[in-house]
Amino acid sequence: MSLSPPATATAVDDHGGGKIEAEVQDEAWVWVEIKAEARRDAESEPALASYLYSTILSHSSLARSLAFHLGNKLCSSTLLSTLLYDLFLNTVSADPRLRSATVADLRAARYRDPACISFSHCLLNYKGFLAIQAHRVAHKLWLQNRKPIALALHSRIADVFSVDIHPAARIVVIGETAVVGNNVSILHHVTLGGTGKMGGDRHPKIGDGVLIGVGATILGNVKIGEGAKVGAGSVVLIDVPPRTTAVGNPARLVGGNEQPNVHEDVPGESMDHTSFISQWSDYII
Amino acid sequence: MSLSPPATATAVDDHGGGKIEAEVQDEAWVWVEIKAEARRDAESEPALASYLYSTILSHSSLARSLAFHLGNKLCSSTLLSTLLYDLFLNTVSADPRLRSATVADLRAARYRDPACISFSHCLLNYKGFLAIQAHRVAHKLWLQNRKPIALALHSRIADVFSVDIHPAARIVVIGETAVVGNNVSILHHVTLGGTGKMGGDRHPKIGDGVLIGVGATILGNVKIGEGAKVGAGSVVLIDVPPRTTAVGNPARLVGGNEQPNVHEDVPGESMDHTSFISQWSDYII
Amino acid sequence: MSLSPPATATAVDDHGGGKIEAEVQDEAWVWVEIKAEARRDAESEPALASYLYSTILSHSSLARSLAFHLGNKLCSSTLLSTLLYDLFLNTVSADPRLRSATVADLRAARYRDPACISFSHCLLNYKGFLAIQAHRVAHKLWLQNRKPIALALHSRIADVFSVDIHPAARIVVIGETAVVGNNVSILHHVTLGGTGKMGGDRHPKIGDGVLIGVGATILGNVKIGEGAKVGAGSVVLIDVPPRTTAVGNPARLVGGNEQPNVHEDVPGESMDHTSFISQWSDYII
Amino acid sequence: MSLSPPATATAVDDHGGGKIEAEVQDEAWVWVEIKAEARRDAESEPALASYLYSTILSHSSLARSLAFHLGNKLCSSTLLSTLLYDLFLNTVSADPRLRSATVADLRAARYRDPACISFSHCLLNYKGFLAIQAHRVAHKLWLQNRKPIALALHSRIADVFSVDIHPAARIVVIGETAVVGNNVSILHHVTLGGTGKMGGDRHPKIGDGVLIGVGATILGNVKIGEGAKVGAGSVVLIDVPPRTTAVGNPARLVGGNEQPNVHEDVPGESMDHTSFISQWSDYII
Amino acid sequence: MSLSPPATATAVDDHGGGKIEAEVQDEAWVWVEIKAEARRDAESEPALASYLYSTILSHSSLARSLAFHLGNKLCSSTLLSTLLYDLFLNTVSADPRLRSATVADLRAARYRDPACISFSHCLLNYKGFLAIQAHRVAHKLWLQNRKPIALALHSRIADVFSVDIHPAARIVVIGETAVVGNNVSILHHVTLGGTGKMGGDRHPKIGDGVLIGVGATILGNVKIGEGAKVGAGSVVLIDVPPRTTAVGNPARLVGGNEQPNVHEDVPGESMDHTSFISQWSDYII
Amino acid sequence: MSLSPPATATAVDDHGGGKIEAEVQDEAWVWVEIKAEARRDAESEPALASYLYSTILSHSSLARSLAFHLGNKLCSSTLLSTLLYDLFLNTVSADPRLRSATVADLRAARYRDPACISFSHCLLNYKGFLAIQAHRVAHKLWLQNRKPIALALHSRIADVFSVDIHPAARIVVIGETAVVGNNVSILHHVTLGGTGKMGGDRHPKIGDGVLIGVGATILGNVKIGEGAKVGAGSVVLIDVPPRTTAVGNPARLVGGNEQPNVHEDVPGESMDHTSFISQWSDYII
Repeated sequence: MSLSPPATATAVDDHGGGKIEAEVQDEAWVWVEIKAEARRDAESEPALASYLYSTILSHSSLARSLAFHLGNKLCSSTLLSTLLYDLFLNTVSADPRLRSATVADLRAARYRDPACISFSHCLLNYKGFLAIQAHRVAHKLWLQNRKPIALALHSRIADVFSVDIHPAARIVVIGETAVVGNNVSILHHVTLGGTGKMGGDRHPKIGDGVLIGVGATILGNVKIGEGAKVGAGSVVLIDVPPRTTAVGNPARLVGGNEQPNVHEDVPGESMDHTSFISQWSDYII
Repeated sequence: MSLSPPATATAVDDHGGGKIEAEVQDEAWVWVEIKAEARRDAESEPALASYLYSTILSHSSLARSLAFHLGNKLCSSTLLSTLLYDLFLNTVSADPRLRSATVADLRAARYRDPACISFSHCLLNYKGFLAIQAHRVAHKLWLQNRKPIALALHSRIADVFSVDIHPAARIVVIGETAVVGNNVSILHHVTLGGTGKMGGDRHPKIGDGVLIGVGATILGNVKIGEGAKVGAGSVVLIDVPPRTTAVGNPARLVGGNEQPNVHEDVPGESMDHTSFISQWSDYII
Repeated sequence: MSLSPPATATAVDDHGGGKIEAEVQDEAWVWVEIKAEARRDAESEPALASYLYSTILSHSSLARSLAFHLGNKLCSSTLLSTLLYDLFLNTVSADPRLRSATVADLRAARYRDPACISFSHCLLNYKGFLAIQAHRVAHKLWLQNRKPIALALHSRIADVFSVDIHPAARIVVIGETAVVGNNVSILHHVTLGGTGKMGGDRHPKIGDGVLIGVGATILGNVKIGEGAKVGAGSVVLIDVPPRTTAVGNPARLVGGNEQPNVHEDVPGESMDHTSFISQWSDYII
Repeated sequence: MSLSPPATATAVDDHGGGKIEAEVQDEAWVWVEIKAEARRDAESEPALASYLYSTILSHSSLARSLAFHLGNKLCSSTLLSTLLYDLFLNTVSADPRLRSATVADLRAARYRDPACISFSHCLLNYKGFLAIQAHRVAHKLWLQNRKPIALALHSRIADVFSVDIHPAARIVVIGETAVVGNNVSILHHVTLGGTGKMGGDRHPKIGDGVLIGVGATILGNVKIGEGAKVGAGSVVLIDVPPRTTAVGNPARLVGGNEQPNVHEDVPGESMDHTSFISQWSDYII
Repeated sequence: MSLSPPATATAVDDHGGGKIEAEVQDEAWVWVEIKAEARRDAESEPALASYLYSTILSHSSLARSLAFHLGNKLCSSTLLSTLLYDLFLNTVSADPRLRSATVADLRAARYRDPACISFSHCLLNYKGFLAIQAHRVAHKLWLQNRKPIALALHSRIADVFSVDIHPAARIVVIGETAVVGNNVSILHHVTLGGTGKMGGDRHPKIGDGVLIGVGATILGNVKIGEGAKVGAGSVVLIDVPPRTTAVGNPARLVGGNEQPNVHEDVPGESMDHTSFISQWSDYII
Repeated sequence: MSLSPPATATAVDDHGGGKIEAEVQDEAWVWVEIKAEARRDAESEPALASYLYSTILSHSSLARSLAFHLGNKLCSSTLLSTLLYDLFLNTVSADPRLRSATVADLRAARYRDPACISFSHCLLNYKGFLAIQAHRVAHKLWLQNRKPIALALHSRIADVFSVDIHPAARIVVIGETAVVGNNVSILHHVTLGGTGKMGGDRHPKIGDGVLIGVGATILGNVKIGEGAKVGAGSVVLIDVPPRTTAVGNPARLVGGNEQPNVHEDVPGESMDHTSFISQWSDYII
């Protein structure tokens, strides 16, 4: 299966209107792919077909499918699925940038992660992907000063996905020309939280193309520069410069704070968790 | 909003009876605050009002609200919410010290954590807070030799809150005069477990004022001294002396085992996760 | 309570048919024990009796009890418990080796872990145990090229048990004569995942008798040799030779990569998480 | 099994205090019987044991068991079981007459209806019995002018039990000496409703010892006199004098309005639905 | 509380555009009333507030509130609430006549039925009202030849509301000028079904202003003329001329088939179930 | 679509072994038809596909599909779907006559009732059909003296389907040669119950080919002869001879008790509810 929409769609990117148009085409193309995948899986695996129809094939758009799936994942006996479905659908419908970000996330996972065998697999099963989509809605509600509901959503995201991102945390830095480059990969058991008891801006800022490994914890008002890499299980309490790697607990920069090694790839794309190992050979006790 | 009950309440603390009376007043005051917060949030956010009424505003006491919320959070298809609600309510009703501890926890979170924008936010959404309230009930059942139900509760707490505290673990050391000082802060993804295959007392003891960071693991019959600090993601296998900091995996004391640095604040109160960083500068590879 | 079936059962092990017969007897003996435990607990704790009857005492075999319990644990509003129950029951019924493995896991937990006060406690409450039973089914479906349903199951296991084992990961190396020695212990918050964006065999292989501690992460196509030990919270990116210990983040071998210390016990049996501490004394900063 | 408590209990009935004491003893005696029945059934039918423990055997009193069962029967996704449980328990705890009425209903069903093989069978499975217990609570809330919640309860009773009794309807006429004689039997698919669009008292009044057959409908401010009988499927729009029978649609009195036949038994006790048949022989067309 | 919108709204009815405008105003006015009632009830009855917020006060329109409530009432483990919510919302949004009919039904119930103490009471609790709203959607799907989903909906309506209206049945005859007069009242336990095994049009047609009593059954291709009345529990197998009354089983016309009595009121409005009684005095056996 | 299996199947009916073989073929043929219908509906109506896959298309046999559907329909928070699924599946698997009866019921509904547009429609949506399948299991449990679970099942059938058939009632009289003729049609709101307070055999016996209309009530130890017809809403307290019709409340025989009219068709097949009307013309008052 090809991983790109038809060339005509990617070509048009010269101005704002064209970009939005291209994104709309992109969203439509990905949605067509997802439905084709789900239909194929439903045919080959009848035991899963009910799940695939209710989550994907019965919906008329990606936004509806995602809102439905998140509503059913995050609901509880006191927060009904229908209420959450409405909340997600209304927020996403009002903001095409949220929909573009979802498409970019899906493409990133599909392209970079060999374990991701299809778009639909990511849409249905990736905790990191689902947690970030829900976080974006919570973050938007937070910025609209609807803090109580943003925090309730945050609490459910943490309960269900074991991914704890404070709604005040800014995950994505979308510059004018950076939408496509918005390639953050956040795996599960990740915490982006505040620290200390002072008020003010106390939450992490995560740049483009960052890879945050399984179980990593990033605390406080620190910046993870674009293209940086945070190792699995690391606890990051300091800024990580662009295109460097932080590993360990507490996390240290590979190459040291003064002269950290700079890598060339975009780890959020390469999903390469282990290339720094050679530099650690002297670290073995 | 003021963070203390009226002066008349805090003044009375000279004898046992006065203390209990003051605590009852304290509980009542916190409950009044919580209801006022919930009412204000329900008005500003109708989408959340149903949740706030069912969890807080329809109840006649803090104990009932908490028992209801925990019952609905921890229930499953084989452990009904009504059964758990009864279990929590009966245990808490029979022991005023459990209720005092809840109030102390709420005040601690509200006072120390700038991310905690209200008592009700803590009551509804803080996994650490909720896990500890449920653990206290499980611990009490364990001490009454009702082990099977204590372990079933423990299993649900771990499933739902990703906080794994063995029911035999003693979290709080409540001395004769130390109830108010009972300021342990336990964040999420924390494990307090046993180790080895010998029987006997194999579980951690956590002193007053301790701060246990996100994702920390404390294993075996170790003592975390009063006012100590355990860094996020740390794995603690040794005793941590009072007012020292243990970080890393496996955790080491900041300043070394022989002469650990002693800090002056109560980290469970200051919630300062990062002040040890300067001492780690030489640790960068 | 004795931990072994009657001698007659263990004695017969001289040929294939005898082994299977012995295993069937073993399964029957464990099931009798489990029912006796559950009956005793139900009598002493009426509040838990409903749970014990629905999960254990109403079933006619261990396989049915486990399929029922996993179906109810892992179900969601879009993946019904009855569907999962059928999936587990059909897969397990068709493969006696899955049933033997379950019995071996139960005996291992019961024998090695002093916190495991009964077989039924493990069956009902141990996240690691439950996650591995469900993983074995997911792994089998993966090998049958039923990938979409294997991944959906994997997603639910990760959501509910906070144990993330890719369905392609091989946990157990069951040699011709090694069934009983199949003593891997995997605690909660464990991740066994792939790394990098290349295809091919990218997942961990875990040998017999391995102990994987709380919150450990093992990434990529690495081998954890038989009898090895992975410390709590460790992040393992390299092969771990047989009977050695890997600890820390990133994990290093105790004794160093060149001459790792070799221990004599089978840590998956001894459950000894901490004996390497003495070797770390110089590691304190 | 005997159907009466020990003689000592029934003997004391000479004054108010004695009566209440006797009733308390009566309640305790019935509850002991119910638990014995449930224990016996759980032993002989493991598949039902979970149900029997959760509904009966895990509770400390009949009132708690009934509140639990009704809460779980009548709950919906927007009216939680825990909320209803609380509502039933609080209302019943505050009024010993509601508890006496429940005991009287249980004894009546057990004594009169040969299909009622045990108290516990009635408590768990009889729609008429359960609907009346819930109606009594709704009626009490109505009298306290808590109309919205009384009507919400009424709606759920009608949905779940197909028994439609307006909360304003007075089912039982409990005179000073008539508590034990309060033997109304209402089967399922029964409607007691208002008629017309005038306000005022528009609902039926049902006297002691009345038997209302399956599917009967009684509309408007009519009186069903003590000991009267309403045939299955009858539609009653007129007063029914004491100890007479009304049958058919629209219901007519057996023997005619002027000289209705008067029977001697208490049909709510004899449960005799068919003795009037001989008088209808000329009715065959 | 007044039962009409401000005069300005009802005055504009001279042409099509004006009528739709007036209806939109009418819908808005009723919705404002419903929210005011629900807010008042939530304040006076905190135990019901959660229910009122989730079903009414959190929604932005009557259509959304109704779709939410029906979705939660009619859902099952295999037909999710979110799916039904979408189905109702999409169907109703596309057809303003369905919304007008809902408003007319609410006003009719509120105006005619003294038991209906508020619009919100009808919206939340009236089985007949809710069943007809759901039936209209099922009927529309039937006409669009989406028979399988129409029948699935029909099955759920019958299960939950005990009102059985075949989706092919036409309940309302809306003439050009008859929208407001569309005053059918259908109480619970009503069946409108087909008969015989021939195909073709086999279902009832119910005219304007008809009152169908509790438990009535109307079978086959019969016409219930405008303003007719069908007694509670009646079984109607023949046409009922306009403004006549059919009662009994099998139903006969009051006054006889040849010269049925003609009444002047609109029984669907007067809700008078019993005025025919005087004519039945000679019917007593 | 043809309504019969291929001729080869129906031809073999000469001896016992052949009959069973033919029935197995019949069951297989109906199941193939049902799956084809469900597949066609799922394609044309994606919103229903999830429901059709979970209830029909994911199952390997009709018995499994029916057990799954009944388990999900009849479950409650205290009687889990998995438990009921097991109970239905085990009972039906052990008795091929139950499976034959299901197939006969499906064919009867499909052949006789023009409203029944497909086998799958009957299987999923017909309350009467579903209630009878569940009743057969309850009746079998009753005969095995498993009365408590038979009564619990009876209670759920009455709650959910509004069809009340006492588990002691014998619905079908299956003679040696009468399996195919076993054509009872029971519509919804039907009650088959006992009467009086004497013990002994107090329940109805329903012969072959009987049609019982909507809302009918049959009470006591009466016989409804083969091919008899009971009108909608009728209340039957007397025996109904073969091939006669009983209507009204209380039910009378058409033609009178002495010389009841005998019809020639099998009403349970013709589904003709109304042919007796002409004989009632003089009955109009």
